[in-house]
Amino acid sequence: MNRPTPERIFNTLTAFQSSAALKAAIELDLFTLIGEGATTSAALAQKTCAAERGLRILCDYLTIYGFLAKENNSYGLTQESAIFLSRRSPGYIGSAADFLTSDRSIANYRSLTAAVRKGGTVAGDGSNTAPDDEAWITFARSMAPMTGISASFIADLAGAGEGHPMTVLDIAASHGMFGIAIARKNPQAQIVALDWPNVLQVAVENAAAAGVGNRLATIAGSAFDVELGSGYDCVLITNLFHHFDAAGCEKLMRRAHAALKSGGKVFTLEFVPNEDRISPPMAAAFSLIMLANTDAGDAYTFAEYDKMFRNSGFASTTLHQVPDMPQQVLVSLK
Amino acid sequence: MNRPTPERIFNTLTAFQSSAALKAAIELDLFTLIGEGATTSAALAQKTCAAERGLRILCDYLTIYGFLAKENNSYGLTQESAIFLSRRSPGYIGSAADFLTSDRSIANYRSLTAAVRKGGTVAGDGSNTAPDDEAWITFARSMAPMTGISASFIADLAGAGEGHPMTVLDIAASHGMFGIAIARKNPQAQIVALDWPNVLQVAVENAAAAGVGNRLATIAGSAFDVELGSGYDCVLITNLFHHFDAAGCEKLMRRAHAALKSGGKVFTLEFVPNEDRISPPMAAAFSLIMLANTDAGDAYTFAEYDKMFRNSGFASTTLHQVPDMPQQVLVSLK
Repeated sequence: MNRPTPERIFNTLTAFQSSAALKAAIELDLFTLIGEGATTSAALAQKTCAAERGLRILCDYLTIYGFLAKENNSYGLTQESAIFLSRRSPGYIGSAADFLTSDRSIANYRSLTAAVRKGGTVAGDGSNTAPDDEAWITFARSMAPMTGISASFIADLAGAGEGHPMTVLDIAASHGMFGIAIARKNPQAQIVALDWPNVLQVAVENAAAAGVGNRLATIAGSAFDVELGSGYDCVLITNLFHHFDAAGCEKLMRRAHAALKSGGKVFTLEFVPNEDRISPPMAAAFSLIMLANTDAGDAYTFAEYDKMFRNSGFASTTLHQVPDMPQQVLVSLK
Repeated sequence: MNRPTPERIFNTLTAFQSSAALKAAIELDLFTLIGEGATTSAALAQKTCAAERGLRILCDYLTIYGFLAKENNSYGLTQESAIFLSRRSPGYIGSAADFLTSDRSIANYRSLTAAVRKGGTVAGDGSNTAPDDEAWITFARSMAPMTGISASFIADLAGAGEGHPMTVLDIAASHGMFGIAIARKNPQAQIVALDWPNVLQVAVENAAAAGVGNRLATIAGSAFDVELGSGYDCVLITNLFHHFDAAGCEKLMRRAHAALKSGGKVFTLEFVPNEDRISPPMAAAFSLIMLANTDAGDAYTFAEYDKMFRNSGFASTTLHQVPDMPQQVLVSLK
C-alpha cells in the first residue's frame, strides 16, 4: 500500500457482515447442498425453499470471501469448505457458528465500549460459570468438532498410546472429547468428567457414541467446590482458566495439584499469547473475547501460567504448540 | 496454505468482534488521544476514565489488527489511523462508525438467514426511503467525511473547474457534499439539493460552513414525486440507485432525463461490480448490504446500468473509477 486509503477501516467496521453471511450459509446448509450438486442459485433455491435472489447474492459474497468458487454462474466448494463446512465431511465444524455467533456474545460485543470502561463484561452473568448455564450446552453441542486435533495432541502428550492403566480427571469436561480421546487411544484409561449436570449429559452421549461409555464416570458440580477425588495420573483443564483472574486460576490449580498423584500432570489447553501480547494473532486477540464476556478473564502468557502453576505447588510447566491450531498445551508436573 | 485449517472459518465467524473493537476505539477517541501523547494504557485510562485493563486489551487487539503499533508497552498510531482516525486530522472518518455499525444494520444482519429466504430485508422499513427516516440523518452526519475524494472526482468530471455558469440538481443530496464540491470549485455553479426536510438541514449547514450557502437551494420531498424543475446542466445521483429494483431506478432516471437540458449529464456514484459479480471485492460485496437492508436493492453491473439509462432515454453512459475508492462514477448523456 503506497498511499493509505480508508478501505481497511471500512472493511473492519463492516466485518460483522461476513460473520452473518457465513452463519446464514451454514444455517441454510449451502455447503452441503453445493457439494451434493446443487451448484446454481436456482438449484439451491429449489433445495432450500429460499429466494433465488437471496441465494445468488449470498453465494457471490461467499465467493468474494473465498468460501466458494464461481465459474459460469455455477458455484463450487473450495478445499476448505469441502473439509470443514459440508456435513458430508468428517471434518465438519459448521456447528461452531452456534456458539461463536451466539446472541449473548453478539449482545456483549454491542456493549464493548462499556466493557472497556468497566474493565470487564457488562453482562449480568459475569464469569459465565453459573450452574446450568445454557451457553455451556450450546458450547458442548457445537464446539466438539473443533477439538479433534487438540484432543488427539493432548492424548499423545499424556502417553495414552502406551496403553498403561491411567486415571484421568477432565475438569469442565463439556462435550468430554478430551477425555474420550485418551480413552479411545488407551483401553486401560478411566476418565472422570466434571461439569454441570446438564452438560455432562452431552459428554455421556459422546462417550457412548465413541464406544468408551463404560470408562467414563462423572462428577456433577463446580470445579471450585465439588469433591474431586485423588490419585489421578492426569488432570485435563481445557478452555477454562481464561474465564478467571489469577486468584481464580491458582485456586483451581491447587485443587488439581491435590487431586494428582505424585508425578502426575495437568494438561492445560489455552490461548497463550507471547510476552508482547500482540502475537500470535489469534491467541493474543482472545483477550478481547474475555473482556467482552467475563468479569476478569484473560489470555495469559506462558510466564504468567508458569508463575501461577509454581505458586500452586507444581514443579515445572512446559509449552507445546498444537499443530495447525491457534491454541497451545501446557504440561505441568506435580 | 498447504493444508486447510479451520482458522479462516473461525476468524470469519468472529469477525463481528473486530467491528465492535474499532467502533469502541472510535467512541473512546483513543486514536486522537494516542496521537496527542497518551500512549500507554495507564495514560489512556486517565484521559478516558476507562479501566486500564480494558484499554490494554483493546489497544493490543487494535495492534493485532494493524490500527496501532506497539513497542515497549507504548502504543502509537499507524499512518492509516493518523490520517483517518485521529480527530486532529482533516481526513478523519471515524464518524462513519455511527452509520456502518448502526443498531438497525446490525439487527438486519442478525436476520440475514431470513432475508436470504425472503430475497430481501425482513425489516419493516423496506426500501429505507420512508420520509424523515432517522437513519438518513445519521448517514448525512456521519458519512460526509468519506465523500471527499469522490466528490472532488465528480466535480472534475462535471467540468466545475472551467468556471462556466452551471445548474446542478443533487438528488438525495444527504450531507450535500457532492453539490458543495462543485460549488466550491466553480463560483458560477448554482446547486439545488433534494432530500427529506430534516436531512436538508445538514446539507444547508455544510454549505454554509463551506462558504457556498448562498448558492444552495433546496427541494424537500421524495425524488420519485416532487417537482424537480428543469434545464439543469448536471444531475447528481449518488448512493441512491442501489436501494431500488430496476423499475425504481428507471423511474428515477426518466425523471432526471426530463429535468436535464439537452446535452446535460447525470453523474451516478455507485458500487459497480464486474459482470462476474464477484469482483472487485468491495463493490461486489455491496449486494449483500442491500439484501439485508432493502426490499429489492442491489449493486448493479455496468451493463445493467447502461441498459437502464438507455431505456430511460439517455444517449450513452461511460464508467469512471474513483481513485483509491471502491466506488465508480457513471456519466450518462442526454
